[in-house]
Amino acid sequence: MTRSPCLFALRKTLAVAALAGLTFAGCQSGPDSSSASPPTERAPVKLKELPLKQVRIDDPFWNPWIQSNQDRTVAHVLKQLQDNGNLRNFEIAAGKAQGQHRGPYWADSDVYKWMQGVSYVLATHPDPQLEATLDGLIASIAAAQRPDGYINTYVQIADPPSRWTNLGFQHEMFSLGSLIEAGVAHFEATGKRALLDVAIRAADHVDNTFGPGKREGTSGHQQIEFALIALYRATGEQRYLRLAEFLLNERGKKPSVFEQEYERLSSTRTMDFLGRTIPVRGLHDRFYRRDPEKFDTSYCQDHLPVREQSEAVGHAVRAVYLYAAMADVVYETGDAGLLAALNRLHDSVALRRMYVTGGIGPSAHNEGFEKDYDLPNESAYQETCATVGLALWNHRMLKLTGDGRYADLMELSFYNSFLGGVSQEGNTFCYVNPMRSDGDFKRSPWFSVPCCPTTIVRTFPRMGSYIYSQSDDGLWVNLFISGEATAKLANGQEVKLRQTTHYPWEGAVKLEVELASPQEFTLHLRVPGWASNHTIRVNGQDVAATVASGYADIRRQWSNGDAVEIAFPVDIERLQAHPSVLPDHGKVALRRGPLVYCLEQQDNQADVDQIVLPPDAPLTSRLENSLFGGVQLITGQGIRRDTPEWAKELYRPVTAASREGTPVTAIPYAYWGNRGLGKMRVWVDVAP
Amino acid sequence: MTRSPCLFALRKTLAVAALAGLTFAGCQSGPDSSSASPPTERAPVKLKELPLKQVRIDDPFWNPWIQSNQDRTVAHVLKQLQDNGNLRNFEIAAGKAQGQHRGPYWADSDVYKWMQGVSYVLATHPDPQLEATLDGLIASIAAAQRPDGYINTYVQIADPPSRWTNLGFQHEMFSLGSLIEAGVAHFEATGKRALLDVAIRAADHVDNTFGPGKREGTSGHQQIEFALIALYRATGEQRYLRLAEFLLNERGKKPSVFEQEYERLSSTRTMDFLGRTIPVRGLHDRFYRRDPEKFDTSYCQDHLPVREQSEAVGHAVRAVYLYAAMADVVYETGDAGLLAALNRLHDSVALRRMYVTGGIGPSAHNEGFEKDYDLPNESAYQETCATVGLALWNHRMLKLTGDGRYADLMELSFYNSFLGGVSQEGNTFCYVNPMRSDGDFKRSPWFSVPCCPTTIVRTFPRMGSYIYSQSDDGLWVNLFISGEATAKLANGQEVKLRQTTHYPWEGAVKLEVELASPQEFTLHLRVPGWASNHTIRVNGQDVAATVASGYADIRRQWSNGDAVEIAFPVDIERLQAHPSVLPDHGKVALRRGPLVYCLEQQDNQADVDQIVLPPDAPLTSRLENSLFGGVQLITGQGIRRDTPEWAKELYRPVTAASREGTPVTAIPYAYWGNRGLGKMRVWVDVAP
Repeated sequence: MTRSPCLFALRKTLAVAALAGLTFAGCQSGPDSSSASPPTERAPVKLKELPLKQVRIDDPFWNPWIQSNQDRTVAHVLKQLQDNGNLRNFEIAAGKAQGQHRGPYWADSDVYKWMQGVSYVLATHPDPQLEATLDGLIASIAAAQRPDGYINTYVQIADPPSRWTNLGFQHEMFSLGSLIEAGVAHFEATGKRALLDVAIRAADHVDNTFGPGKREGTSGHQQIEFALIALYRATGEQRYLRLAEFLLNERGKKPSVFEQEYERLSSTRTMDFLGRTIPVRGLHDRFYRRDPEKFDTSYCQDHLPVREQSEAVGHAVRAVYLYAAMADVVYETGDAGLLAALNRLHDSVALRRMYVTGGIGPSAHNEGFEKDYDLPNESAYQETCATVGLALWNHRMLKLTGDGRYADLMELSFYNSFLGGVSQEGNTFCYVNPMRSDGDFKRSPWFSVPCCPTTIVRTFPRMGSYIYSQSDDGLWVNLFISGEATAKLANGQEVKLRQTTHYPWEGAVKLEVELASPQEFTLHLRVPGWASNHTIRVNGQDVAATVASGYADIRRQWSNGDAVEIAFPVDIERLQAHPSVLPDHGKVALRRGPLVYCLEQQDNQADVDQIVLPPDAPLTSRLENSLFGGVQLITGQGIRRDTPEWAKELYRPVTAASREGTPVTAIPYAYWGNRGLGKMRVWVDVAP
Repeated sequence: MTRSPCLFALRKTLAVAALAGLTFAGCQSGPDSSSASPPTERAPVKLKELPLKQVRIDDPFWNPWIQSNQDRTVAHVLKQLQDNGNLRNFEIAAGKAQGQHRGPYWADSDVYKWMQGVSYVLATHPDPQLEATLDGLIASIAAAQRPDGYINTYVQIADPPSRWTNLGFQHEMFSLGSLIEAGVAHFEATGKRALLDVAIRAADHVDNTFGPGKREGTSGHQQIEFALIALYRATGEQRYLRLAEFLLNERGKKPSVFEQEYERLSSTRTMDFLGRTIPVRGLHDRFYRRDPEKFDTSYCQDHLPVREQSEAVGHAVRAVYLYAAMADVVYETGDAGLLAALNRLHDSVALRRMYVTGGIGPSAHNEGFEKDYDLPNESAYQETCATVGLALWNHRMLKLTGDGRYADLMELSFYNSFLGGVSQEGNTFCYVNPMRSDGDFKRSPWFSVPCCPTTIVRTFPRMGSYIYSQSDDGLWVNLFISGEATAKLANGQEVKLRQTTHYPWEGAVKLEVELASPQEFTLHLRVPGWASNHTIRVNGQDVAATVASGYADIRRQWSNGDAVEIAFPVDIERLQAHPSVLPDHGKVALRRGPLVYCLEQQDNQADVDQIVLPPDAPLTSRLENSLFGGVQLITGQGIRRDTPEWAKELYRPVTAASREGTPVTAIPYAYWGNRGLGKMRVWVDVAP
């Protein structure tokens, strides 16, 4: 069977569109794909996650990354949190130690995020010592919490009167979002309620403070919204869902809740911002009042009511955290207005505002979005946290629809921009992820704003959550990662899936079914959008399965020991960017399977800036075992511009000059920047 | 005969190199030009200018430009100088009016530059009313001059104690340079000494103040140096040549004369800078102390003694004014150290730091040079004054050597970057000259720093000076501009040359000789570096003339009525930039004859950003009489990137997609920006 090569294209779920009161055209196939069958679309299916504990990863590609996170990054980050005072802040706030608050006023959140990540580790890899460390920290946090449930060490230590006075920038709710996520993760991993109870007290405090008939307001930095829905799911307590909805619905008021707050803030008081004393109104002035005549809160997606939003704007992490929460609300309530907004916002990101590596947010000045097709390479900001947030949002969109388009994008972000965010040693990180470097870029062990390292800590051990889903009719395989998963079918019967693959290096995946008794259900196997075709075999026999919205459906009576194999060619492709992405004109990006490649100077004799890859230059891949435990490199023969004849000229007529060939080697973006300083380019010129 | 297509390449004059103690490789021909005869090089020949009064321009291409300057720009600029207070400053300084000084502290210079330009106009187009206006102004200036010869209305009105205390930035000598140039021009045009005498008194004042045994110091902004040499040539007074040499030789001392001055400047006193009050040390701090630990005067080319300089650095106008003065000194003295430096500096500019349009100085922050091959397009600063300065320097290099390479570059600057600096109406101007515009750029009627409009005023009416030269053995035709010139041969006999051409639109030039009696002399006809071949006929008969260093030499007994015709194909060429010019990768610039073209949105249906001009797309030229009195456009069939199939995708594999053709029209850069706002690009993509 063949699939349209329509990449990242609008593989729209008609029913989703109908639900949102919108109609969409189908995927626009390129002229060369006219012979391919048009993709079939599926009515939206609500998918459930498999609990993390039911999934075990044992995969040649992912094991080194996950192990490095578990063995080195977890310890490295903990040490940084100790050395930088984040842990001690809780002791000071509890009155058990003396001193000043250290770190940014949202320093608590990084502790919580680390705890969340470690909880996920414990879910699949019990470790009494790590658990004890967590327990100690939880006790310290609990001791710092005020009797009314409030907790924020910066406010408690440095500026108690500022409590809830600066929702626009003081990040109290943002930090509580991390606390709640950590509490839920810890409870689900260990069954212990200590951290969950701290989180519940904090959430109850927020719920007692904000809401209809109580205070107005919402958080300048989103996160608490989806955390509250996680808490609702963990506890069944509807109030948390309602509070999340309230916080979403507070956005976009006229005047903005943040403008009202600004008016109340003293023009003379100051606050600490990363070690500098700034006016307490300073960040509002900088981010909401760039034009002093106009209070513009698009930076935090407060420019319009959420149901009226259509364009991804402002700070990228804030944006995708918001959209993820909106998707969670739709999942729980079916809110059609939110869904319609999500579809528009998703188009805004995926069709106009996303890097080919699955990252977002090109601009440094707002750590976020600027305008359509604004995707510079050298100055790409593409914050690691934003990449992860985008993947989380796509995972939620997948759960809402069963549409493989979202799985494609989740995979894209995880396998490229996200993995590029951490070194092979696991102890240095990217905050920004450039698409091109002149050789002066390297990862850092820590940052004054260390959100990205702690995001990385909490992302790797949760990868198991994204591989499988389930629906009423069966199981879904979203990602191709070796290991095992156990699920309960709708009838209560348990089924185990064992996945074996060398993906992404190779395109063959085997799934073996383990069942106590034969069961009829559908196995939905993702067929990646990038795959030009695929084959499916069940117990060695070719099967012609229907593919709808990116998943091949195999419904049958499954018996113990049944084996399904799905395979797709992992071809090297040259990708072109939309013509409106001006910096990518005349350039291609190389992709093989889900991996986007880059040229690094270390692998190339010619200056990477001078390498041209003509359209007719053949490319092959080669397994290089000496690199990072085995990596498929892309190699070929390009040409170089900087021929000796240029020695004494600045401009000259184009001639049919001799082409000087040069070998070209590309490495997955995921592995870049691990071999010292050197130039790097994702987008490669096709003409001199 | 064929010429190497080696464009802007090092067509080195071996004897110049020998004089400078250097050896150079010959021109590196491209691989396709191996069949062309290597260019012959000529021992350097010192050329003399023909006095402006002896040259009359009557040319279809240049007449509209020159006439517009004479008819409109001269009046427009005078009105601006009146309205902005520049003229009144002299009355205030003379005590004939009350008020504050207006304009920048170098506001006088723009008055002098206007007077210089008007004097050139009078040299060939007597105009009693204009002459009377000049006389009135001269009286006003003379009245403002102090008895000791000092004159600077800012210092006299606003800050008398600051006289000669801030050579680094107060531009007193810079302004006097304009006065001296104006005085010489006025004297030569009218025979009147009034302004020349003001200039002499000012120059004598400087000479009495600065020099060996007197004060040390030189000007932060060069110009007085070449003005003093012009004064030396006009008066025969050696002191002015020596003073110019002294001022050149003051550069590059350790510690710098400007650093010594900085130490003397008060840290508490202030000055006016464009209407803002800044510390009197403020500009030193900004431009010489960007790194407070290091006093770095490369901004004004004071980082090294002039004979040790090799790289064009700092403010571009300052740089080329310096190099022009150095060339004048070499012309007068044969100073071998200065010549060697000039050759190195010329390579630095012409081989590594010049736009394809003949402009220089890419960077806004220093209005100048940054580093080799740093030639951004959209942010190209390329100040109009710097373009003219570069042309003036190349004219002086031509006079030093008789090497057509410099005539090529002078022509390039004049026909492209310079002409782009003024609108067809003659009343709006470019200060910066972008190489690409997103449609938001337009020329301005005036600037707070209006140096470029007054530079334009003084450049057009002097064009006659650059067309011809003479040497002991005969006459040189440097530029192809219709009109007449009268020269005296070495034996005192007068010869008149009548030039007829439709250059640059066509490549045929006819020269008719008018003589009282037959005379033997050499006619040196420039063969442009861009010409792929040429033919020469004398009285209708083909002649095989030797071409050396870019000039065809025709030595014979010339009789009255003899006619020489030289012709070269005016082909359309695609130019490529040196591979180290990263922004021009995958792009070509179109050139036809000496004219560099650009795509303007007004002429193209497809979005200019989306037009691709594949290497195989044929191009033709077409005379468009409806535009600017008749312009040769370049037209062809390109392709457009923004095909409808891109509607719903952000990235996709490169396919052998249908090429959607689109007509492409290019217009000479000289004419851009005259038809409302619109996108413009000089460099055009060759691949999607």
